[in-house]
Amino acid sequence: MEQLQYHEGRTEISQMGKVALIERITDGFRNVNTSTVCSIGDDAAVLGEGPRKTLVSTQTLVEGVHFDMMYTPLKHLGYKAVAVAVSNIAAMNGTPRQVLLSVAVSNRYSVEALEELYAGVRLCCNRYDIDLVGGETSSSCAGMVLTVTALGEAEADRITYRSGASLHDLLCVSGDLGSAYAGLLVLEREKVTYQANPSFQPDLEGFDYVLERFLKPEPRMDIVELLRKHDVVPTAMTDVSAGLADSALHICRASRCGCEVYEERLPIDYQTSRVCSEMSKNMMPVSCALNGGHDYELLFAINQKDYDKIKTMSEVHIIGHITEEGMPAVMVTPQNTTIELRAQSFQGLDE
Amino acid sequence: MEQLQYHEGRTEISQMGKVALIERITDGFRNVNTSTVCSIGDDAAVLGEGPRKTLVSTQTLVEGVHFDMMYTPLKHLGYKAVAVAVSNIAAMNGTPRQVLLSVAVSNRYSVEALEELYAGVRLCCNRYDIDLVGGETSSSCAGMVLTVTALGEAEADRITYRSGASLHDLLCVSGDLGSAYAGLLVLEREKVTYQANPSFQPDLEGFDYVLERFLKPEPRMDIVELLRKHDVVPTAMTDVSAGLADSALHICRASRCGCEVYEERLPIDYQTSRVCSEMSKNMMPVSCALNGGHDYELLFAINQKDYDKIKTMSEVHIIGHITEEGMPAVMVTPQNTTIELRAQSFQGLDE
Repeated sequence: MEQLQYHEGRTEISQMGKVALIERITDGFRNVNTSTVCSIGDDAAVLGEGPRKTLVSTQTLVEGVHFDMMYTPLKHLGYKAVAVAVSNIAAMNGTPRQVLLSVAVSNRYSVEALEELYAGVRLCCNRYDIDLVGGETSSSCAGMVLTVTALGEAEADRITYRSGASLHDLLCVSGDLGSAYAGLLVLEREKVTYQANPSFQPDLEGFDYVLERFLKPEPRMDIVELLRKHDVVPTAMTDVSAGLADSALHICRASRCGCEVYEERLPIDYQTSRVCSEMSKNMMPVSCALNGGHDYELLFAINQKDYDKIKTMSEVHIIGHITEEGMPAVMVTPQNTTIELRAQSFQGLDE
Repeated sequence: MEQLQYHEGRTEISQMGKVALIERITDGFRNVNTSTVCSIGDDAAVLGEGPRKTLVSTQTLVEGVHFDMMYTPLKHLGYKAVAVAVSNIAAMNGTPRQVLLSVAVSNRYSVEALEELYAGVRLCCNRYDIDLVGGETSSSCAGMVLTVTALGEAEADRITYRSGASLHDLLCVSGDLGSAYAGLLVLEREKVTYQANPSFQPDLEGFDYVLERFLKPEPRMDIVELLRKHDVVPTAMTDVSAGLADSALHICRASRCGCEVYEERLPIDYQTSRVCSEMSKNMMPVSCALNGGHDYELLFAINQKDYDKIKTMSEVHIIGHITEEGMPAVMVTPQNTTIELRAQSFQGLDE
């Protein structure tokens, strides 16, 4: 009875997908400021009265959840914290300008450790011409929590929301998919081996690409600039932070459409395939691409009129197209069977 | 020897004052964007090319460090998280417009708990006409970490930096000081008693004011509006988040000046005095005011020409004046002795 009362009205966060959770907890919020153009539900908020808008987005990295200090150099971590926040500005087709960094750390960390972290932050800021304009350092009871807020700017008519995709638009992705997750798999494997035998030397040779993809991702500002140079404005865009399936579902939900992506079109690096074949549980590279996450590539839809411009871009891959409202988001296999895309944000763990 | 090597080059964060720590870790950062008007070192960053500027500031609250779930209602916590971030916008003489909220929570918290938290966020947003435009929810390994980024706006020529105070300016503070810390003392006392005997009913009667000051502070937007109405632009301003001494030292450091504040002028509520007299260790109310913190009042300097306007404001107290460069920041007692102000951010714990 006491047990029952304790659980009465208690819903576990893990039972809900993130999309439903955010909808539930932000229910009842109404915007009142004319400078709020777009708020919750895209990669960044869009603010400002004039034609030139401010983009703002925030991203949190938690030790033990998003990173493991056993294999994360602090300098890489600082770089990554800025990179993933800036990726949200890239996903809106904007230019990053400033970041604020809040760090909560336990007394396990020294001043020298913080200096390493900030050296990585500085490296990423320098690389992308971003100013560090604020933030905070505070104590934590356990571990490290980093929150980066990124600000950027964009002309109102060049901002890419998740919601603008139309029927027959082509679906494109930059770079390759699944390699960051493959890097994570290698790091986790070596960690387990090391824990079993601390005299063991980690074997990371031949995995430099996938490791870098996980430990030190780059926001695809080069793609934003390439599209700008060719005067292509995607009809919809988001970054690939939690796998292709998650990103595709976000675009479909916001644009009220379905999509088809072709398995054989998915760009997958040979190192990703190699890692998968070495894993004991027969991991499929396509699973890394669909649900692995951490890639920070850009997924975007373009109008077919832009096809000739896109096809010359070696780092951009056309992987499918937008289908009509009411249709699901699916992957078509080489055998021509269709598999509906699923992602954890849209389905709770217990569903 | 091993012990020595372990400590070689290791500086404890607690050894350094926050001011010196931030200077050290942000050394080498250079701003490159013309839209960055003011970055690290004030209550908020100032951004934008035109005459109307964007203000942005971020604030983190960590469970077990900034709040104790034993006596913090989640709705109050949500309210406070927004309020303390907005206080930074008030301190720049700006108007808050948007906030972003990042929440990292362990599985100890339910969806209903998050709803309570967001109900408090919504209440504060409604109270101050602020839009919630983004953020994130993520998992944490232990406890809750909240990061709020607040955005606001202000005309460039009405922004109040910490750095504008001049010799003979009057030093003013809003509301009263030390009451939030007195509230914290009451809560901590009742917690200890409860832990010793869980059947014990907390005795909070007669402490409603100091408890509310700690649990649900208000950013002093009413003071910002009052000053605006009377066309007073302070020469320097900051909020009182870590005690009057800390805020006064920040203004003196940024403005390259000293100051004198008069002990008998410090506004202290009778409940604060009552709490202090009840405490076993003979706490002085003036210590709560100088170093207690959590008040979120505004400390500001005004030119003497504005004295006639200020003296009619019942919620604004003139507590001292600015002295010349090279002079220390001091408090003058009724016995006419001077005591140099000290604050933890400026002195490491071990100094």
